Amino acid sequence: MSLLKKSFLGSFAPLLVSGLLVGQMATVAVAAEHDKHKGHAGHHSKSYAHFNKDGELLTPKDYREWIFVGAPVTPKDMNDGNPAFPEFHNVYIDPVSYAHWKKNGKFRDGTIIVKELTSVGTKESSSGNGYFQGEYLGIAATVKDSKRYANRPNHWAYFGFESYESKSAAAQADESCNACHVETAAFDNVFIQHYPVLRAAKPAK
Amino acid sequence: MSLLKKSFLGSFAPLLVSGLLVGQMATVAVAAEHDKHKGHAGHHSKSYAHFNKDGELLTPKDYREWIFVGAPVTPKDMNDGNPAFPEFHNVYIDPVSYAHWKKNGKFRDGTIIVKELTSVGTKESSSGNGYFQGEYLGIAATVKDSKRYANRPNHWAYFGFESYESKSAAAQADESCNACHVETAAFDNVFIQHYPVLRAAKPAK
Repeated sequence: MSLLKKSFLGSFAPLLVSGLLVGQMATVAVAAEHDKHKGHAGHHSKSYAHFNKDGELLTPKDYREWIFVGAPVTPKDMNDGNPAFPEFHNVYIDPVSYAHWKKNGKFRDGTIIVKELTSVGTKESSSGNGYFQGEYLGIAATVKDSKRYANRPNHWAYFGFESYESKSAAAQADESCNACHVETAAFDNVFIQHYPVLRAAKPAK
Repeated sequence: MSLLKKSFLGSFAPLLVSGLLVGQMATVAVAAEHDKHKGHAGHHSKSYAHFNKDGELLTPKDYREWIFVGAPVTPKDMNDGNPAFPEFHNVYIDPVSYAHWKKNGKFRDGTIIVKELTSVGTKESSSGNGYFQGEYLGIAATVKDSKRYANRPNHWAYFGFESYESKSAAAQADESCNACHVETAAFDNVFIQHYPVLRAAKPAK
């Protein structure tokens, strides 16, 4: 772990920006988000991953209105004060790729998965002792694309962002991310062992 | 806490049914879910809370494709083996009420919020030590309706379900639920202090 932590923090420290909220930027309503895709006959091939002319991933928008798949928490107080990803990870998949997953049980080309980090806000509430989400800390994203990332393991690439206001990804950190995603994720680089939504929606063979 | 726990478990033990997955029932795609509401000029008044002739809340469907708002975890090992709500709580609001919240900062009549419980599957992964979601345990729901629940505090009613296959709510437990929701929730019976998605989307005054 300690090597991975160092590696991650070295590449991705800019990701962890606190106090900036993307909520204000999410002005597109849920219905409108999906409407955009209705006008296209081939809308199921449309990706939510967008790139600039230099091929850099644009900072995802409105992902809080995508499909939530699970929320691991790696609290500071369980990781010597220094977890690789502090602390809650709210993980989302874009809705068209989710629909594809439900039908085919596979992650399509163009799938984008966003991991948004929040602090632990409190450890006690009226429901008992535990961990409760606090403030947003930053996002990371991964995109599967067999053409764009033909040489990456299973065609996934991994991105960090300087801040919520960055226009595009600050860093691509495939090596450090793949170290875990290739080796220990349960299905195609994705930790579906921690994501009950994806496991339940996967069609039986 | 111990009194509340007893009260909750007494009324809601049937809620905690493991091994049954609602995922297979969720056959409506995300886009289709929203399409249903497009045909209606007054779709913003349509509620996702549906009732039978006897006024019992029908078991919510497809809520995993609604808007996720936060995921507290109250693990067994932090609550003497017996948390009031074991263990992760994945909380969702219906998308039309979320759009209303983003615009108005209020929960509209007809708002439905679902809390889905999952076990802790593991406490260790390649990202570090923590809590990681395991299997589904059951759901609970709350509905705000100023006509239907004119006499309840802030017009919210609370429901438990026998199993994922129940057609309608098995129990309405307003008294035990209100004990916490009225007193300690940060806004209109809802624990937005634990739900960063709702806090960020709330418009500035």
